[in-house]
Amino acid sequence: MKSGPRAQDVAALAQVSQSAVSRAFTPGASVSEETRRKVLAAAQRLGYRPNAMARSLITRQSRIVALVMSYLENQFYPLVVQLLSQRLQKEGYHVLMFIAEMDEAADGVLADILQYQVDGIVLASAMLSPTLAHSCAEVGVPVVQFNRVSDLGGLARHATSSVSSDNAGGGRMVAEYLLAHGYRRPAFLAGLEDSSTSLERERGFTEALAESKREVISREAGHYSFDGAQAAVRRMFAGPDAPDAIFAANDHMAIAALDVLRQELGLRVPAQVAVIGFDDVPQAAWGAYRLTTVRQSVSSMVDATVGLLLEQMRGEIRARDVVVPCVLVERDTVHR
Amino acid sequence: MKSGPRAQDVAALAQVSQSAVSRAFTPGASVSEETRRKVLAAAQRLGYRPNAMARSLITRQSRIVALVMSYLENQFYPLVVQLLSQRLQKEGYHVLMFIAEMDEAADGVLADILQYQVDGIVLASAMLSPTLAHSCAEVGVPVVQFNRVSDLGGLARHATSSVSSDNAGGGRMVAEYLLAHGYRRPAFLAGLEDSSTSLERERGFTEALAESKREVISREAGHYSFDGAQAAVRRMFAGPDAPDAIFAANDHMAIAALDVLRQELGLRVPAQVAVIGFDDVPQAAWGAYRLTTVRQSVSSMVDATVGLLLEQMRGEIRARDVVVPCVLVERDTVHR
Repeated sequence: MKSGPRAQDVAALAQVSQSAVSRAFTPGASVSEETRRKVLAAAQRLGYRPNAMARSLITRQSRIVALVMSYLENQFYPLVVQLLSQRLQKEGYHVLMFIAEMDEAADGVLADILQYQVDGIVLASAMLSPTLAHSCAEVGVPVVQFNRVSDLGGLARHATSSVSSDNAGGGRMVAEYLLAHGYRRPAFLAGLEDSSTSLERERGFTEALAESKREVISREAGHYSFDGAQAAVRRMFAGPDAPDAIFAANDHMAIAALDVLRQELGLRVPAQVAVIGFDDVPQAAWGAYRLTTVRQSVSSMVDATVGLLLEQMRGEIRARDVVVPCVLVERDTVHR
Repeated sequence: MKSGPRAQDVAALAQVSQSAVSRAFTPGASVSEETRRKVLAAAQRLGYRPNAMARSLITRQSRIVALVMSYLENQFYPLVVQLLSQRLQKEGYHVLMFIAEMDEAADGVLADILQYQVDGIVLASAMLSPTLAHSCAEVGVPVVQFNRVSDLGGLARHATSSVSSDNAGGGRMVAEYLLAHGYRRPAFLAGLEDSSTSLERERGFTEALAESKREVISREAGHYSFDGAQAAVRRMFAGPDAPDAIFAANDHMAIAALDVLRQELGLRVPAQVAVIGFDDVPQAAWGAYRLTTVRQSVSSMVDATVGLLLEQMRGEIRARDVVVPCVLVERDTVHR
């Protein structure tokens, strides 16, 4: 890489001040569209690259937010990547991707993340260990857990926020909806056994059933994978006590379940068995599935995440946990 | 953000040399697992953050690759984000996300990208303008276009590689397959009219039909969107000349077409009309669709992209265009 021209060369060619050049390259800085256009044209002509890194050494801001993620198989996460990238981009930040092992602790990528002097970390579908949380707290990097909650104590607690849906409330809604529509032998198709999403959805579901003197008659884990969910559904129907309704801990597994029920087991949905999911991914609305589900508002969750990051970067607030309400979406996989 | 401890503090606590600390934080550097563990433990204890940015000013390497992308609605792109991030991470690089307007030129994010002193740029589902290509060539940043090809001349040509599937060959395969299975009234469901993917797939398709004295009897554009594809299919069947087979320029549109054909128009697939897509996204294999399609090997395409970037970063080769072969996947939406 050759060493490039300087800001004053750009200013001279564009016939603007050096400060205008600097402002043209600073996200959010005040500069007229015309000036910005002149500066960019001159910069492109000269091959000038404003040096965000040199600036970051002075301002201690990299304008980078690390996103740690373990798998995008679930269609919920591509939406998160896109919306989070778009929203942060508007604020002058960009998302740097770190891929962790599926739902394992993100500690493996920690050294790597800190090297980039990131201004914040978002953990989605990856676990936050107390060690990692503590390290981030010590160096003053705010962390937001997205769609996951961990038990943390002490210093770690101060630097770690979380954004999640009302998972228990959603699970409760599902139980009440199934009972109101006459289902009496509900099954729960669990996700990853140690994920807060699956645990909380199950807790709300079974608590609401218990209040009506009902219980889950079958419970199998699909580990949030397509194949895992299909195997779990086969197990549910192998015994004598087949369920009349399945609550899957996410849509990805609910869709997998529908394929097994209809195509392998020859069952009619919802006439013989109901299926209900969680997330409301775009595929849930596809004509071949028309899945009844609980909608998590990705957009509200992303807004909350960006808000928390910005507040914590400015040092204005302490970490906190935001719970976004969810809503049941009626489609065609539960009798109405 | 408070200023942190220095490398020598970490070395002292870990009882290793300062050079060992440096190596423990350098991707690919030689250091024993035990030393690395000691260094990381000490670094975490002290809150030490190795400063990749300060180093990038010396080495002129940021270890960041920009990924410019416009939409993830098509399930092909989440796979690209995940595989590209994973493969680059193994090489010590990370992906910084830039979201551009859908299939528009990526020039709008250029100033933004160059601020981060990126080591390379991958453009996926975003167009490369000659201006942008020229700017990148001037500053010596290699660019790889992923799944898109642009006509470029002069200097721009030297810094710009591309990786794509054999789109024309795939389109040709589809025509031959449909003719061999008795279909005589094929339609083409186009994507974005100025995207090289849709143009090349259509070219191969119509050329192979012409060689057998056949032609497309209906052509509508779905612009690579779900709703756009559904409207296009309705138009195809509104007139007197209904097709007996639809080749959709990608799977996302083929799935949208299947829903309209079966649920709105009450047609049986493949008995009354065949549908064939392009990509082989995971959803194409789902039981409710079982879509016959042309598989693009995302994994081979990502490998080629990373290979080109690394070669060009080392200044070893000139830019070039890599074309990855594709293969027809027989499922249940075309009569066999």
